[in-house]
Amino acid sequence: MTELRKDPIVGRWVIISTERGKRPHDFPQEKPERREGLCPLCPGAERMTPPEILTYRGNGDGWTLRVVPNKFPALRIEGDLGKAGDGVYDRMNGIGAHEVVIETERHDLDLFDMPEERIGDVFRAYRERMIDLKQDRRFKSVIVFKNHGSAAGASLSHSHSQLIALPVIPKRVMEEMSGCRDYFRFRDRCLFCDIIVQEMEHKVRIVEESGEFLAYSPYAPRFPFETWIVPKRHQCAYEMIEEDQIRPLAAIFRRTLRRLNLALENPPFNFIVHSAAFLEHAAEFYHWHIEIMPKLTKVAGFEWGSGFYINPTPPEEAAKYLRELPE
Amino acid sequence: MTELRKDPIVGRWVIISTERGKRPHDFPQEKPERREGLCPLCPGAERMTPPEILTYRGNGDGWTLRVVPNKFPALRIEGDLGKAGDGVYDRMNGIGAHEVVIETERHDLDLFDMPEERIGDVFRAYRERMIDLKQDRRFKSVIVFKNHGSAAGASLSHSHSQLIALPVIPKRVMEEMSGCRDYFRFRDRCLFCDIIVQEMEHKVRIVEESGEFLAYSPYAPRFPFETWIVPKRHQCAYEMIEEDQIRPLAAIFRRTLRRLNLALENPPFNFIVHSAAFLEHAAEFYHWHIEIMPKLTKVAGFEWGSGFYINPTPPEEAAKYLRELPE
Repeated sequence: MTELRKDPIVGRWVIISTERGKRPHDFPQEKPERREGLCPLCPGAERMTPPEILTYRGNGDGWTLRVVPNKFPALRIEGDLGKAGDGVYDRMNGIGAHEVVIETERHDLDLFDMPEERIGDVFRAYRERMIDLKQDRRFKSVIVFKNHGSAAGASLSHSHSQLIALPVIPKRVMEEMSGCRDYFRFRDRCLFCDIIVQEMEHKVRIVEESGEFLAYSPYAPRFPFETWIVPKRHQCAYEMIEEDQIRPLAAIFRRTLRRLNLALENPPFNFIVHSAAFLEHAAEFYHWHIEIMPKLTKVAGFEWGSGFYINPTPPEEAAKYLRELPE
Repeated sequence: MTELRKDPIVGRWVIISTERGKRPHDFPQEKPERREGLCPLCPGAERMTPPEILTYRGNGDGWTLRVVPNKFPALRIEGDLGKAGDGVYDRMNGIGAHEVVIETERHDLDLFDMPEERIGDVFRAYRERMIDLKQDRRFKSVIVFKNHGSAAGASLSHSHSQLIALPVIPKRVMEEMSGCRDYFRFRDRCLFCDIIVQEMEHKVRIVEESGEFLAYSPYAPRFPFETWIVPKRHQCAYEMIEEDQIRPLAAIFRRTLRRLNLALENPPFNFIVHSAAFLEHAAEFYHWHIEIMPKLTKVAGFEWGSGFYINPTPPEEAAKYLRELPE
């Protein structure tokens, strides 16, 4: 079993393994080896994963996308929350959902090498799972993310992403929502909608603009070549995405990843879908988006201590470089 | 010149190089090579650093500790803040101080291999520099930190730590101070003082207790074997440390680093001195401390997206392991 514990100083929740934990010799000092032999995410190895939650099939016989529970979940789906105090501290049981989206049946394809329509399926699967998880009243938010490359935290090379549903609103999500709520109260407008207008006027940080979406380098990026994709339509939660936005999202997302890939020579990266927590009334002030973060620099003591980041590449230069690459 | 830019969504400040930035090919995909040849922090190479700000000398001829401005500073000491808006965005000039504490003249000694008295000098130097930097009314906080090992962000192997003085209060510092202020308002007691009492009663997360200090695994650690050192005396800011606390701090700090080193086989780590920002009235509610974070796990998409951490080692097990090591 795992436990959720809250840091009493800054209010951050942490998932702690309370079963026999990792001992010092369990931490490798070097990069993990790519696992060779049978890939547990490949066709034919379906028994190596827990039973599937969602399957898409193409025109052929086999599956083209599967969603399965994580075999080594950070949180468990069954049980009650068991919220409790312990002096100055707060805890609850490690209840949640942890799912793996196997994005393709092909072991040799990365997400950005897949055709647009198939990338669209990945985005459809995210929506379907989020809508389903939202029905569970124990959950307050869902994080969808992908780790690509060992330096970005991926432990399997077969292309996949993950969903984690949480019984609390994570600190980072709460901060974004508070920031946007404050802006809305002050100006009666959505902050992201205002950012979109300003970026389209200034143009210097735009990587690509399409009818439905904007890919841009944010004004204050933590990391070099950090790139965000935001829908022009005002929608607070990812699961509100409509079918006619899926293909345009797949298209700009694929081109953006390919640009990053070309510029930075297949960098490790993370992307995270930032979506409103399951609160009422977020509709007006929050705006979902995707943050893509290539992992080129190391996060060191200063960043950990301050929450301050040092970024050696101005976003205007990063955007120009990415914008001017051949497609 | 660098620029400080504020993320309008969560209020995080970022330091952006606005001179010609790093282009894609400037980012190495592999670990940086240890620089061989002449070490710029060694005796005899003093001309390779900017002129020193502070020097300690032992009984011999040469220096035993030097503080110098960083040769490649993230922020510049000269100029005015030039605060300005740009539509929804906020910026100011990259004004600040960025100093390097060369902890020893010996290239072959790590901080934890030095005698207690010499580690005490390092802590004295931090105090001296913080008191001096606080005189500059442009600065609102100072972060003192050390990166040990290339995976933790160190680029030179000669033992050193760094100070950065900032013209804004970083988000993380602000959050800690707000959390502690809220607790104080609610209970009329310092949160850290309450934590110290509870930890000393429960004992399960204590690594070592001395007359003046407590080394312990925090209740909700982000990382395996994360260890904090906190003074038993209530003091809000590090620079308030008194001479009779310096040697006890050096002693428990040295033993704690040596325990971590023995348990985890010389892990990369960061430590950060968490001290009150230069505000009035922080005296009652905040409590300085040092956070030591071995770098054993990778921070991946979920952590970036949520501010949530998954820690596979319960702090009670980490503390027990460290506590029971031979000295």
